[in-house]
Amino acid sequence: DITAFLQSEYEQSSVYAGKKILITAGPTYEYSDPVRVFTNPSTGKMGFAAAAEAAAKGAIVTLITGPVQLDTPSGVTRIDVTTAEEMYEAVMERFPFVDMVCKAAAVSDYRPALIAAEKQKKQNGDLSIEMERTKDILAELGKRKDKQLLIGFAAESENVVKYAEEKLDRKNLDMVVANNIASKDAGFRSDTNEMILLRKDGKHHSLPLLTKTEAAKEMFAFAESMLKRDES
Amino acid sequence: DITAFLQSEYEQSSVYAGKKILITAGPTYEYSDPVRVFTNPSTGKMGFAAAAEAAAKGAIVTLITGPVQLDTPSGVTRIDVTTAEEMYEAVMERFPFVDMVCKAAAVSDYRPALIAAEKQKKQNGDLSIEMERTKDILAELGKRKDKQLLIGFAAESENVVKYAEEKLDRKNLDMVVANNIASKDAGFRSDTNEMILLRKDGKHHSLPLLTKTEAAKEMFAFAESMLKRDES
Repeated sequence: DITAFLQSEYEQSSVYAGKKILITAGPTYEYSDPVRVFTNPSTGKMGFAAAAEAAAKGAIVTLITGPVQLDTPSGVTRIDVTTAEEMYEAVMERFPFVDMVCKAAAVSDYRPALIAAEKQKKQNGDLSIEMERTKDILAELGKRKDKQLLIGFAAESENVVKYAEEKLDRKNLDMVVANNIASKDAGFRSDTNEMILLRKDGKHHSLPLLTKTEAAKEMFAFAESMLKRDES
Repeated sequence: DITAFLQSEYEQSSVYAGKKILITAGPTYEYSDPVRVFTNPSTGKMGFAAAAEAAAKGAIVTLITGPVQLDTPSGVTRIDVTTAEEMYEAVMERFPFVDMVCKAAAVSDYRPALIAAEKQKKQNGDLSIEMERTKDILAELGKRKDKQLLIGFAAESENVVKYAEEKLDRKNLDMVVANNIASKDAGFRSDTNEMILLRKDGKHHSLPLLTKTEAAKEMFAFAESMLKRDES
């Protein structure tokens, strides 16, 4: 119908039309044996909402996701990974060819140092698990970036703005999306989010409690002026 | 229609009609801080399929589930829990009043000994996490049971039948549902399962690769003769 057509025309004319955007979503799974996993409570909803919104704006979207129970948004190319290492490889391979990265995935920063091939039988008493650091994807992207606009996420339970500003600076990001996971109805496992957007030029934008789809719209709107319009 | 009516009449006349069945499903989440979790890759699909099947057979079904992304089957009372400790409490509270327990949940057998209230910032270098045992729900049910029929699950990656038989005996179960999680298309995160049913009277029944709904039907059929028919 005509409304949908005009809406579509409008969105195609946005700065996002034809831009290549890489979005990551979900948790990673770090196995210590076939049935024991280190992870986090991310459901992937924020990243999937961002992917759907970017595709609706006419962007060419690749979504790299950890294990989630969500359907692929229409028009989005999806790549499934399990571990932080696989996420790192999948992101680095595509990074040189994109205009923007939106790193909504909650990647494990530690993994078990030893991974057993068989299920380990439980023993009496306590157990100590040795963990090692995974590669920091966002920090590496911050080092490698040239033209790419880099948006990171900061899920914090305290000192939210302070930690988010430090992350923006330390990892050479263009924007950071901060959220307080201690808030009710926000962050992990929720359909809604209450975020603060911080740009490297010092502009801040505090959003009210929104659905993750609405939050994704606000995020792209706030980033838009930082993204170069194609010459035409 | 008449077929559905007859089907319904047939199922209502089964030994399961009016029986109180407690089913557990999904993983548990053991947090070490607000964003770091020990868990396993269970999606809850097997337990939810069992709950739907038991309700269709006319049973009064309570489903206690860890964090999953699944809709509650029609006619089933659902109780959401997060940790192994919460699962233990929810099960023990209801156990005296049920006729049968089907423990499909994949409960964490270890949890972090210390739980931090705030997100722990990552550090350079390695990390050691101290883990302690959680309570063994199935073993406790095996000790406490009087009239209840007790069905456990054994997810194994090697020596499947041997480990399952040991579990049946050691935990005083009436039946154990064994599956080889190393098999392709079976076990965690799959819509299908390839199971071996072992009863305490020594009867074994190896199932082919089935959907989890079909597997649930087979499981209840194989358990049926052990469940006392109500006097009428």
